[in-house]
Parts: sequence; C-alpha cells; structure tokens
Amino acid sequence: MTALKGILGYLVTPFGENGRGIDADILRITVDHLIEGGVHGVAPLGSTGESAYLTDDEWREVVEVTISQVAGRVPTVVGVSALTTEKTTRFAALAEELGADALMVLPISYWKLSEDEILTHYAAVSEAVSLPIMAYNNPATSGIDMSPELLVRMVMELENVTMVKESSGDIQRMHALRELSDDTIPFFNGCNPLALEALCAGAGGWCTAAPNLIAGLNIALWEAVCEDRLDDGRECFYKQLPILRFILSRGLPATVKAALRLQGIDAGTPRLPLKPLDEEAVEELAALMAAAGS
Amino acid sequence: MTALKGILGYLVTPFGENGRGIDADILRITVDHLIEGGVHGVAPLGSTGESAYLTDDEWREVVEVTISQVAGRVPTVVGVSALTTEKTTRFAALAEELGADALMVLPISYWKLSEDEILTHYAAVSEAVSLPIMAYNNPATSGIDMSPELLVRMVMELENVTMVKESSGDIQRMHALRELSDDTIPFFNGCNPLALEALCAGAGGWCTAAPNLIAGLNIALWEAVCEDRLDDGRECFYKQLPILRFILSRGLPATVKAALRLQGIDAGTPRLPLKPLDEEAVEELAALMAAAGS
Amino acid sequence: MTALKGILGYLVTPFGENGRGIDADILRITVDHLIEGGVHGVAPLGSTGESAYLTDDEWREVVEVTISQVAGRVPTVVGVSALTTEKTTRFAALAEELGADALMVLPISYWKLSEDEILTHYAAVSEAVSLPIMAYNNPATSGIDMSPELLVRMVMELENVTMVKESSGDIQRMHALRELSDDTIPFFNGCNPLALEALCAGAGGWCTAAPNLIAGLNIALWEAVCEDRLDDGRECFYKQLPILRFILSRGLPATVKAALRLQGIDAGTPRLPLKPLDEEAVEELAALMAAAGS
Amino acid sequence: MTALKGILGYLVTPFGENGRGIDADILRITVDHLIEGGVHGVAPLGSTGESAYLTDDEWREVVEVTISQVAGRVPTVVGVSALTTEKTTRFAALAEELGADALMVLPISYWKLSEDEILTHYAAVSEAVSLPIMAYNNPATSGIDMSPELLVRMVMELENVTMVKESSGDIQRMHALRELSDDTIPFFNGCNPLALEALCAGAGGWCTAAPNLIAGLNIALWEAVCEDRLDDGRECFYKQLPILRFILSRGLPATVKAALRLQGIDAGTPRLPLKPLDEEAVEELAALMAAAGS
Repeated sequence: MTALKGILGYLVTPFGENGRGIDADILRITVDHLIEGGVHGVAPLGSTGESAYLTDDEWREVVEVTISQVAGRVPTVVGVSALTTEKTTRFAALAEELGADALMVLPISYWKLSEDEILTHYAAVSEAVSLPIMAYNNPATSGIDMSPELLVRMVMELENVTMVKESSGDIQRMHALRELSDDTIPFFNGCNPLALEALCAGAGGWCTAAPNLIAGLNIALWEAVCEDRLDDGRECFYKQLPILRFILSRGLPATVKAALRLQGIDAGTPRLPLKPLDEEAVEELAALMAAAGS
Repeated sequence: MTALKGILGYLVTPFGENGRGIDADILRITVDHLIEGGVHGVAPLGSTGESAYLTDDEWREVVEVTISQVAGRVPTVVGVSALTTEKTTRFAALAEELGADALMVLPISYWKLSEDEILTHYAAVSEAVSLPIMAYNNPATSGIDMSPELLVRMVMELENVTMVKESSGDIQRMHALRELSDDTIPFFNGCNPLALEALCAGAGGWCTAAPNLIAGLNIALWEAVCEDRLDDGRECFYKQLPILRFILSRGLPATVKAALRLQGIDAGTPRLPLKPLDEEAVEELAALMAAAGS
Repeated sequence: MTALKGILGYLVTPFGENGRGIDADILRITVDHLIEGGVHGVAPLGSTGESAYLTDDEWREVVEVTISQVAGRVPTVVGVSALTTEKTTRFAALAEELGADALMVLPISYWKLSEDEILTHYAAVSEAVSLPIMAYNNPATSGIDMSPELLVRMVMELENVTMVKESSGDIQRMHALRELSDDTIPFFNGCNPLALEALCAGAGGWCTAAPNLIAGLNIALWEAVCEDRLDDGRECFYKQLPILRFILSRGLPATVKAALRLQGIDAGTPRLPLKPLDEEAVEELAALMAAAGS
Repeated sequence: MTALKGILGYLVTPFGENGRGIDADILRITVDHLIEGGVHGVAPLGSTGESAYLTDDEWREVVEVTISQVAGRVPTVVGVSALTTEKTTRFAALAEELGADALMVLPISYWKLSEDEILTHYAAVSEAVSLPIMAYNNPATSGIDMSPELLVRMVMELENVTMVKESSGDIQRMHALRELSDDTIPFFNGCNPLALEALCAGAGGWCTAAPNLIAGLNIALWEAVCEDRLDDGRECFYKQLPILRFILSRGLPATVKAALRLQGIDAGTPRLPLKPLDEEAVEELAALMAAAGS
C-alpha cells in the first residue's frame, strides 16, 4: 500500500428497519458519496460508525460491504476498537482477511489502562496482523489518554504500528510527535476544529466525518496547505469551521446522519442511547451547510 | 425488599482455565467470603466484576450462580451496564427474571450523552423491570458525569429509580443530593477514600470491593457512624485508608483478585487488556493488609 | 500562646469615606461582633480582609486597631501575603512587633513558584519572626497549589511553621496531611462547604468568614463534632450550608460586608475592581440568613 | 500611531546592586538589543518585566528609561496590571503622560472577578487615557479567564480597547475572536509554543520575550507566514520550539535573564520569591541556544 495521506473520510453505519441490522444499500451509497467527493481514503467503523453499538455479525457485514463497494478506488482503513484484547485482535485479523488496507486502533477499555497494559494491547494486535496500524488517541471518547512519548514508543517498538492519529485537540501533542520521532512518524489530525493548525504543523492528513457534508471544502484546505497557499487555506478553513464545530459538539453519528438526509441520502438515525438531532438542530445544520455553499 | 443500607460488597468474576468461561465454584466461595465477612448486600457485575468484558452467556451465568449461592441471606444488587439501551434493558429484565433484588445501572455509552439521552436510557430500563434501580454516577469509568440535579430528577420522575450511588469523589455532590431531595433519596458512597465523610454527610451505605479484603474494618466504620461514635469511626477509617487508596489507584479487578489469593482464594487474574498486579505490588498489598490486621 | 483551635473568624476591612483609608471605629465594632459571637480567634487581613488591596499604611493600621480592640480576649492571627519575599518578611516582622499571636502566610506570587521557591519563601518568613506560622494553601486565589507533602515538609523543616490551613476543597488533602505527619500537625479547614467533613476527618479548627453572619451555627458545629454528637453536627451543618455556599460563590468581601449591613453594621463596600452585591443578591442573602435563624 | 503588528518583544527589568532599584544602564542595553534584533515593538513591564514586584517609583523609572531609549524607533507598549482599579488607572495615565504608544492591560485581582467587574475595570482604564489598549487574557498568571465573547464585547463597547492578546494557549480562542468580530479585531499571540498556529490562524502579531534570545528566528517565522511561505515557516518554528518551550516552562524572568547573560548582558537575577536558574538549567539553555544557532 502506498502511504496514507490527505483526507480520510469516516463512514456512518446505516441501520435497517426499526434500527435492526445493516442497510447495505445505503452503506454503498455513502461509500460512493465520499469517494465521489474526493476523499483520499475511507474509514468505516470509527466513532462516527457507531462501532461500539454493533453486534459481531453487523460489524463483519459493514467491513465486507464497504470493501466491496470501495473496490480499491482508495484505501480502506477499518476501525478496530473493542473492550477486550481478545476481541480486538479477533476483529483485526478479520478485517485483514476481508481485505482492509490498514487498521485504526483505539483502546476503549472500561478501566483506565496503565502504559504497560496499553503497550501489551497494541502488541497483541500488531502480532495478529500484517497490516499497517494507526494508533489512535482520543481521550474524550476512550477515557484513555496516550502521551506522545507512549505513541512514539509504540511505533518504534511494534512492527505494524506505523502511524498515529491525534484527537485530543492539543496542538502541542503534534509538535511533540514530530520532535520525538525526528519527523519520521506520520501523524493525522482527528480533531475537526484543529484542522488548519494541524496541517500547518505538518500533519500527514486529516481523519474526519466532515466529507459526508463538505468534502469539497475539506479537500480544498488540504490542497491549499500542501501547495503553500496559506491565505487560501485560512479562508477555506474559516468557511468550514462553523460546521466542524457543530458536528463535533452535537455528536458525529447524529449530525452526519442528519446531514446525509439533507443531501437526499436516508442513512436513518443512531442507535439508542444516542438520539437523532431534534428539528431545531437540523434547521441549524441546514443553515450552516447552506452558508458554506454545500 | 427492605431498604438497602450499609455495606454492599462487590464481587469479582473468577474466570476458568486460560481465562475462558466462569469458574462457578470459586465464585460461590467469594460470595460466602463476603457474606461471612458481614456485608449487608452483595453486588455482582459491577466495575470490579469486569462486567464490560463478559460475553452474554458469561453474564447470565454470573447472575445465576451468585443468586443461588446468596440464597436470600442478604439482598443481591446486580450491575447492569451495557453500551446500548437495547442490551441494557434486556440484561435488566434478565436479572429480574433470575431473582435479583435490585439493579445498579451505570450509563457507559461510547459517546457522551446529553441529559435527554441519559433520561431516555434510564426510562427504558425503569419500564423494563419492576425492581428498585440505583442510578450510578462514575465519570471516571463511564465518561459520563450526571449532576445531582439530573440524578434527583430521575428518581422523582422514573418509577423504579429509587436510589443513587455517587462515585465522583466530590462530597459536595452528596450535599446537593440531600438538599435537592429534602433528604428523601437514599444515596450511597462509591468512592472508597471518601467513605468516612460520605457516611458522616448522611450516606445510606457504601458500595465497595473492600470487604473482599477487610470486611471487618468496613463494617466497623459503618457501625461507628450509625452509633454516633465519631472518634471510633475516624480511627477505624484511617486504619483502612491506605488499603482503600491502594485498591482504587491500582485497579479494583487486579487488586481484589490478588488480595483474594493472599487469603487463599484463587480467583485468577483479570481479562486483558487488564493485567494482574506485578510481584512488587502484591507485596505492597500484603504489607498493607498485614498492617490493617486483616 | 496556647494552641489555636476551633473557629477562627476572618475580619473584613471597613474603608473610610469614598473608600479611602480605614474606618477604625467600624473595624472595632466588627472585632467585638466576632468575639461576642463566640469565635476562638480572630484573623484580620486574610482574603476576606482585602489585604491585597491595601496600602502599607492601611495594612499597619488594621493590625494595630485589631490587636488593641481584641485586647487579648482571643488570639489574633494576622494574614501576611505579599507578592515579594521582601515585603512578606517585612510585614511578618511588623505584625509580630505590633503584638500578633500567630501569622497566616499564603504565597501569592504573580508567577507560579517551584517547590524550591516556595520553601525559600517560607524559610525567609520563618527566620524573620518568632511567632507560630500557619502555612496556607488556597490555589483558587493564590494560583499556587502546595501538595500535602510540601506542606508537611515545611512544618518539619522550618522552625516557626507549625500549622497548615487547607482551602483547596479536597478532603483527600486532609487525609494526607494527617497520615504524612502521623497526626502530629494541626490542620485547619479553609473551605466553608467542607466544614463538616474536615472536622470529622480531624481538622483542628475552621478558619472562616461565616461568624460575621452565623457565629452561633459555626460554634455549634464545632462543639457537636468535639463532643461526638455526629447527628447534631450533621443537622447543624446542613442548616448553615446554603449560607456557606452563597458567601463562597459570590465572593467573601462583598457578601460579608452586605451581611454586616443587614445586621446593622455599616462596613461599607469592597474596593474596585470588586463590586458590592447587587440588590437581588442582598435579598437572597437576607432570606438565607432568616432561614438559618440568624 | 500606525497599527501594531509583528513581533513585540518583552523587556526584562534589570535590578541594581543587591536587587535594589533599577539598573537603567542595563535596561537601555536590553532595549537596544531587542530593537537591533529587529522587533516591531517593545513591551516593558509585562510578566517578563516582573512588574508585579516593583515599587511605584521603580515602575515609573522603567517606563521613562525605556521610552527615552526607544526614542521612537518602534512603538512602546507598556504593561499596566495592578491589583486595584485605582492603581491601574493611575499607572495607565502615567504611562500616557510619559509617552507610551499603547497599553497592555491584564486584570490581576486577587479575587476572581465577575464579567461585570472585569468590564467596569477596563472601562475605568479606557476612560483614564486616550491610548489604544490591548486587553490581555492570561489565566495562568492572572487567575482570571476572559472568554472570547467578553473580549470582543469590550473592544466593541470601550472606546480605547482596540486589540486583544490571547495567552491561554487554546487556538480555538483565536478562531472565536476572529469569528465573533468578523475579522475586524486584531489579536496577538501570547503563548510561545503556539506561535506557528496562531500566525497561521490569522494573528496580527506575537508578543514574546523570545527576541531577547532568538530575535532572528522569531522575525523569520513572522515573515514566512506573511509571505505565504508555509514550509519555511514550519521549519523555522520547529527550530525555535525547544527554546520557546524551555523559557515558558522554567519561568520567563529567570530564563531570559540567564539567556541575556549568556549573550554578555548582565541583567542580574529576578526578585524573590523568584529564583535564578540553577547551573544545570543554564547549561541546558546554552545548549538549546547553540542548537538554534543563536
């Protein structure tokens, strides 16, 4: 696989009637929607994909449908995050078997983990597959905060852990990742309202659900930074910032599913305990999207 | 059921060979160990019980074995905490069917939940059973922090939610619970190093894994406060505080299982990613237990 | 001096016409008001006394007037908190010369201080006087958070530092102070809404501005805990808690001066940038005082 | 005055023998050092200048000496931060009388201030002078955190408050300042390790003590961003980042004075309670400066 970079778009997981099972047809449409929008990779079963709320069979179906629909047009990065090491390694191996190009692994243990426990967890995943793994830090959802020192150590020590995704929202973490690795480890931004600064600071890409709404603006920001057109990048960033902030603060599954419906794609609603956006929020979102020209 | 009060002891979940399945024999021994230690109730499948790491079948087995072994000697309060509302209500109904006396419900959704989402989640559980439910706030493990205002509102509005357990460690939350409910809602302490103050502030009990180690000291503290012997209570609290702090900071499943082994009960080790205590920590724990006279 | 213990009441600093100078007559009245209320000591020039906002001459006058009016009826503990070590030691020596019984020293440096800098600061004060010094931790106002370890170390190493006052609001700090010193260092509570628990945990007293409003309730809580009457103490605490919370959240100088006026003592208003309570807040305060029977 | 922009360099305050009084000769040398380094403005009596630790006479002398030595080569922005509103307005008027070009006002009240109290404080300063005022948010040193909403409101409502300096370290605050003001309010970065991102996000300048050490690198970063040379800016930023982090984490007065001495300018040591860098830290600083080629 060539190195991942650029805009990696998260997929939602559309459910079937009454919220049961997967709606494979709609899932295929959302895959095409992202790729036609121009993303450089797609990422099913991340936070946006409600992976924590799926059964094992549903999880497998999402991987299968996504990979068959992507059909190699761009890389597919599968999110693998389960509460036990046993299940995480099982899912990682399954994703590889089904054709994933890379894995994104977030530790989501109920209990806080020590550095030793985190390292052992990632080592087990690394040994279970031969795919490149992105170590993913997102303390707000996982409850576990991995320091840049630990992240760099894992890339150095574990064969298949080769990339980092940072979603803490603290730009100093990215500075540290670059410095500690002497600029040898690709790091990706996972905090939407930090996109401009992360790319300016040297991030190799941006993992985001926003391309479901505003792929053009996301791509334009990436290209402006790559081409040293900072003024354009800044203008483009502030144009999309209100939407980035909205989808983050109101919850990605609910906001992205609502935004897809505003674009004519009925991806349904999230699973309880998550609730869909109320009408007022949908109107606010529609206005933000209109203002951004999307 | 008469009202719950006093010391509610958490059970660990002993696994079978190579960490697979439940070791029902050892589970029965730990149940007896707690009851013979004098606890006023037992609580399987809480955080200490690694409930997040069990399969559905294992979960059911733990409930069945526990209730049959308790055999009505004290109330059994079953922890019910799953990532979706669907699974939470299903488990709640199952626990009732299997004979639980009460439920303890912690919201552990991957995503942060709004107050409306939390309320809807508890309402669904309340409607699914006819057992008393303890709403359980533990932001450190669940990632969701429920304010005293929300907790009191849920007890007022939801028929079967009748008690609160507070594990945030902030004594002001307990003051607020008492004031907001005009001292009508029983609240339980779930933060071990806060036990003296919570009981002094009026907590109706203390939910804790410590009776697996030092049931005598836990009971003595409870009785001293009940009997207005504050000097005795204070002395007794400071005697057990180093152990309370140790088991909290080093992780309950690992520390309690190690402590059981020190007492001759082989409850095995936690499931990965959780690791057992290393030798040095076991020695520290043994020394603390010896110093406390247990 | 016999050991300090019990309720130490903070004095406000009443200003003269148009906020200029000290109103010594009113200051004398507030001293008597506290002592007649039953406090076990008075403390001028703490946070409540707006010491940070006084000129050097005003500071000296407050010490002189207070000590002459107290006239040995109870101990006088003078707050000494200046931005430089030079000024702090100068004020400490002055307070001793003017007859203070003890000093309360809060580090309020503009810059965060290292542990070494804090230790050197307290050492200089300790060497400048022969009075007992209370090391005072209040991160919310001083911006500097001293750990229990550092506080205990200073009492151990510095001749005249003999007591600690803890205002962080974290009861675990008090546990640590007691444990680290083997129960040999007197610690005082400085966080009003923590009064019940601090005393239950073994605090040797409570430094508070509340006796300006409700001395009777403050004294009653202290006596109940001393006499092992926990039920009485709890009832008494919850009766005064709404007032304790109000004066803390709305700012002590403004709330206490308003409360004195409600009792017929015109202590004026705080110095800008602090503003007096608005009318609505004064009414709320009056209602709380009436409800507490004061 | 033409609009402030670019690199504003903070001055240290060199003290005389035994730390008493101001060493005007050295102060003049440090002024020239900054201006010859290329800064676009100089800022005496900020945090770096230990303004909180000066007497009134010393404060006046620093302003006089600085302005006479600058002699109009660049603008002089005087820091005005006192604990009372009365003293703040008095100093502000004095700075104007002595020839300052602009003022930087940080609220440093001992007590937390309400938004109303902050607004009243700034209004008083605004009315006392006819100079442009930079509202300065630095919660880490002042203990008061002003929201972007409040800062924008003050610029809109108060005649002479025309600029903002943000030192909280949170880039989202700068996004908000730009959005809330429709890009009409100049905002300056005050957090050294955030310099690259703040400038990329549209900051009109960077207030920093770093030009005392590495003016060339600071200026180069500014120019690279202005000229849309992002790659150069990024490279230049990472080259200076270790120094920026060091001086922030170890305290500006001590580190900058040590760095000046390494360059042959004996600006002495900070005032107690601040202590000078120890030998090991000086060596670390020297190595960082050598590595950065300064």
